[in-house]
Amino acid sequence: MPLARRTDLGDSNYAGLEVDVCHDLQRCLKETLEGGFDFLVTPLAHPRHRRPAPSARDPSAPTPAPFARSDLLLNSTQWSSQVVGKTSPWIDADSVSAPMRRDSEAALRQELMWAAHLSLHAVLLPTPSLKAANYARIVNQFLTALSSTALWVRIPVVSAEVEAAEANGGDGAAEALAKQIDPCTRRRAHDPFERWANLRAMCEGHPQLSACLEVGASLPPAAELRRWVGEPVKAVVLNADAFITNKRGFPVLPKRHQEFITTMLQKNVQVVLRWSGDGDKAYVVYLFRKIDAVSEQELVESGYRDYLQAPLQPLMDNLESATYETFEKDASKYIQYEEAVHACLVDRVRDADAAAGKVTVLMVVGAGRGPLVRASLRASDRCGRKMKVYAVEKNPNAVITLQSLVESEGWEDRVTIVASDMRSWDFEEKADVLVSELLGSFGDNELSPECLDGAQRFLKEGGVSIPQSYTSYLAPMTSSKLWNDAKAYGDLAHMETPYVVKLHRYSLIADPEEVFTFHHPNEDKVIDNNRYEKLLFKRAPDAAAATMHGFAGYFDAKLYEGPAGKVHCSIYPPTHTMGPTGEPMFSWFPIYFPLRTPVHVPAGTNVEAHCWRCVGPSKVWYEWAVTAPEVGPVHNVNGRSYWVGL
Amino acid sequence: MPLARRTDLGDSNYAGLEVDVCHDLQRCLKETLEGGFDFLVTPLAHPRHRRPAPSARDPSAPTPAPFARSDLLLNSTQWSSQVVGKTSPWIDADSVSAPMRRDSEAALRQELMWAAHLSLHAVLLPTPSLKAANYARIVNQFLTALSSTALWVRIPVVSAEVEAAEANGGDGAAEALAKQIDPCTRRRAHDPFERWANLRAMCEGHPQLSACLEVGASLPPAAELRRWVGEPVKAVVLNADAFITNKRGFPVLPKRHQEFITTMLQKNVQVVLRWSGDGDKAYVVYLFRKIDAVSEQELVESGYRDYLQAPLQPLMDNLESATYETFEKDASKYIQYEEAVHACLVDRVRDADAAAGKVTVLMVVGAGRGPLVRASLRASDRCGRKMKVYAVEKNPNAVITLQSLVESEGWEDRVTIVASDMRSWDFEEKADVLVSELLGSFGDNELSPECLDGAQRFLKEGGVSIPQSYTSYLAPMTSSKLWNDAKAYGDLAHMETPYVVKLHRYSLIADPEEVFTFHHPNEDKVIDNNRYEKLLFKRAPDAAAATMHGFAGYFDAKLYEGPAGKVHCSIYPPTHTMGPTGEPMFSWFPIYFPLRTPVHVPAGTNVEAHCWRCVGPSKVWYEWAVTAPEVGPVHNVNGRSYWVGL
Repeated sequence: MPLARRTDLGDSNYAGLEVDVCHDLQRCLKETLEGGFDFLVTPLAHPRHRRPAPSARDPSAPTPAPFARSDLLLNSTQWSSQVVGKTSPWIDADSVSAPMRRDSEAALRQELMWAAHLSLHAVLLPTPSLKAANYARIVNQFLTALSSTALWVRIPVVSAEVEAAEANGGDGAAEALAKQIDPCTRRRAHDPFERWANLRAMCEGHPQLSACLEVGASLPPAAELRRWVGEPVKAVVLNADAFITNKRGFPVLPKRHQEFITTMLQKNVQVVLRWSGDGDKAYVVYLFRKIDAVSEQELVESGYRDYLQAPLQPLMDNLESATYETFEKDASKYIQYEEAVHACLVDRVRDADAAAGKVTVLMVVGAGRGPLVRASLRASDRCGRKMKVYAVEKNPNAVITLQSLVESEGWEDRVTIVASDMRSWDFEEKADVLVSELLGSFGDNELSPECLDGAQRFLKEGGVSIPQSYTSYLAPMTSSKLWNDAKAYGDLAHMETPYVVKLHRYSLIADPEEVFTFHHPNEDKVIDNNRYEKLLFKRAPDAAAATMHGFAGYFDAKLYEGPAGKVHCSIYPPTHTMGPTGEPMFSWFPIYFPLRTPVHVPAGTNVEAHCWRCVGPSKVWYEWAVTAPEVGPVHNVNGRSYWVGL
Repeated sequence: MPLARRTDLGDSNYAGLEVDVCHDLQRCLKETLEGGFDFLVTPLAHPRHRRPAPSARDPSAPTPAPFARSDLLLNSTQWSSQVVGKTSPWIDADSVSAPMRRDSEAALRQELMWAAHLSLHAVLLPTPSLKAANYARIVNQFLTALSSTALWVRIPVVSAEVEAAEANGGDGAAEALAKQIDPCTRRRAHDPFERWANLRAMCEGHPQLSACLEVGASLPPAAELRRWVGEPVKAVVLNADAFITNKRGFPVLPKRHQEFITTMLQKNVQVVLRWSGDGDKAYVVYLFRKIDAVSEQELVESGYRDYLQAPLQPLMDNLESATYETFEKDASKYIQYEEAVHACLVDRVRDADAAAGKVTVLMVVGAGRGPLVRASLRASDRCGRKMKVYAVEKNPNAVITLQSLVESEGWEDRVTIVASDMRSWDFEEKADVLVSELLGSFGDNELSPECLDGAQRFLKEGGVSIPQSYTSYLAPMTSSKLWNDAKAYGDLAHMETPYVVKLHRYSLIADPEEVFTFHHPNEDKVIDNNRYEKLLFKRAPDAAAATMHGFAGYFDAKLYEGPAGKVHCSIYPPTHTMGPTGEPMFSWFPIYFPLRTPVHVPAGTNVEAHCWRCVGPSKVWYEWAVTAPEVGPVHNVNGRSYWVGL
């Protein structure tokens, strides 16, 4: 029975129970469901010992007893939705003993085939060793053969060796162990993440291969836990020793455990209990219900989570009505613009001049359906500075809305509509203030620089552009979901396109760094909007290993800064603009620059990358490359995969 | 004028002259050609200083003077075949100064475009810095835009810093410098190879991007020089300081220099002199002519150099007459078989039994057009052991040849022809000796194990198979030509297929390691020809960095070992079988297992790899993967790209 009926938390509504032995499957499943769980994690094979591989079996010996229960015990719906199979614990496909390896290989294949035959939703596989090449190959063969059964690999959040060292009270010993490096692969031998990363690399991040995190008594540092959010974690197994007993004698999770489980539940990760003590399921339900209810906006956004959108081409295409509507809903953005215009008016027009009736000419370029006109007029009203507004808009459909707005609001004597492209329009009157909202998620990626360079000819000497400047930011990130979704298109172009994405299952590997900055109006003799930045992402010497799937991009725009106020509009996390009700501005999602091949970032290693903004006669594009920890190819050479038309 | 008329050495017939200044291009070229050179390496632009980028130029200023000479100075054939352009020496596209970078970028693009306009065969580019990301991007943009002009990048074999330290007599200082590691990329900062490897990685090994090695007074250790053979080196520039003066006052190269130049000339690399002293061209002609004349067999083989051949499918297809002919030409192979049969007969049949007329039954499985029958009969005649031969052959075309051979040689009473597939044939008489030549370049890759497992039912208890066993070997290798040729097919399948190749432009990164061994007859109760081997290729702690493009594969077959002799047949380099005239056996070229993505192997780092031989109901295939220095994907999963049909 689901933990709750929350549509925003998807899979995590369902909880499972893992057992190590199950003599009577039907009864075991019945009890599991009656206990409130949604599925049972149970061994695929009889709990017997090692079976010889067919090739090692004496052909004259009688046929061996079946290794598993009959598929008739449950119906196909039960098999596929209520049972997750576990492979036999004795299997070791990378054993140094060749006969053991051969028997293990045969048994692992046999059990996987059986699970596929039963159409199980998933099979839970054992923790691989650091270099489980043979295990990886068998898993990869199964995945590549296109079964619908997913594979979950059990990965402890802390290695058994480190956990044992911690339990022995040797904190220093545990730490030393955690930092040991494998001499051949140069990876931290006791960081379970490395085992997962190796396995995944050998299987090329197959979308049906996921991690199942096992949580016991100890948890690693927060930063190490955070890595997993960007990884394809499907479930968390809570072992009995993860629980402590509270004052009233009930089993509860320690605070950090609670926080981690809550985070994972919010990321659609299912919980599986490996202990059927009293009240445990109720406790998971309790944790789940404790997760804050989401706002209406968040609910809307949950549909966009980790969904790859191609960036807008605002110069080449006209926006649709629904797009305008979505953006106009973002009150926080227009409040910032109102504040910016307000501060700008106060700074430019002294009180005396205002009283004398001085009129400020304000030009909105790209007026759309009018939100910036409205915000500007509100600012004018608030500070008592008279204003004449030109609303320039090239989209004839939006002009219709604009005209009826002016009429319905009675703005006829204050607002002049100019139905024209700001790049080609020719006008006699010059403006004091040029207001625009041409920024994309990466600041300059919707060609705000090129548009405003063209429009600034309407600006008086000493006139102000709102925004005055904007800066883009990039941060290396783990995001296996996004990478796999781009990969699924099966071509180069989709691996070299930046996408607008509501990031959800991701984790940053380092803090964002500044990339490009543009100032308006641009006073340079010859304007050059080409840019190049070399980025060094410094990581702490004890930072854990992580996998880099690309970069998250943001922007921070200085709308206006002057004596009367400093107003920014930002999706750069440290300065993200918040709305009046404390909700973050939502008009822009971050941008995702993918890497064609994921890059392993070893523990304590910095990331070095390069980003270029290239301007051609008819298009603008980015190129990007990583040069540390490894040197990789330049992406999107000559804008071959992605560009924005001028 | 070419150095000689040797068809086996291709491009290296042509030598060039590099000049730093050339006031009168026509005269300069004329003198170069009169001096016996074939082409001139000369600056593309006037030898003036930095030109401002168009974006930094005052638009009101007069149009600047042209940066280059008129294209009318030479005709188009002269431009394209007799001139290689050099870019301006002041260009630094990765300068920390943004204006310098901008001007450099503009100038570099301008000069590249000019070279493309002139249809120059190549442009010689300056040595990149260790992390020349911006340089790499411009080069990559040019390459991706599909110009026919090749780019040669000047790479000194010893970095200027190390050479200076050596010149100062500080041998320890030079060595310490050579081993310095860049903190960010973890590469040896003063190994020029690293600069090349980084640039090439950013450009994804574009086939039009090559290295031009610059040789001065000092040379690095032999192993470091050897790396370059597998890299796309197009030319070697000999600086004036590479020469010393001999007793007679003539400029000559030191011995190690001579050896290096000779090696490169043999690998089709052109020589360019950067010094026009007396007699220098004559000296290069002398070195070139000194290269040993090749044998007829080598001349035939030169057409196969670095040419990718798909391995044979001998079970599914019948061989063609020409293929039989090629193999039969290899006397050394059949001499080994004759020796093996001879030793085997001597061991099995005592002199007394031989005198008593004891007959040995020998079965040739896969007799083809009869060379093994002939070799066996020769052995029998030599040692006076009577023999009855069954020649089993499934190819009806070969059987015709076999029949006429038996007739013409008068073997009717000694040889019985069986026109049948050894796997399905049913026969009453059992053999003492089973002789076959079913080995592929990687030993078991043409399914010798499966064929002989089937054929051993004709063998008496205690009977002998010739070969008795065989072992395959693999070694990691640099081979950019082969990798690019496989890549050029543009699909996954060609990057996961092992090819039979006459290796030429390659260098091994570590010594070969043993992979799989098969013994015949196979006495196992249940025969299992699946194999898995984990391979650790150890490299010396001071081994230089290299790029791994895949693995070279070999085999060593034990034809027969017994008291009367040990006879092998091998293409494994340390034991390569040599013929009676001292020429190596040529029936088998090595096999090349490609890697989908080249792997950088840092200095002093080991390579770890895995190889599997997988046997399915109807096919046999290999899978392979690298797990150190980096963990990479499993290749050819489930035999999706390459397999041999049973």
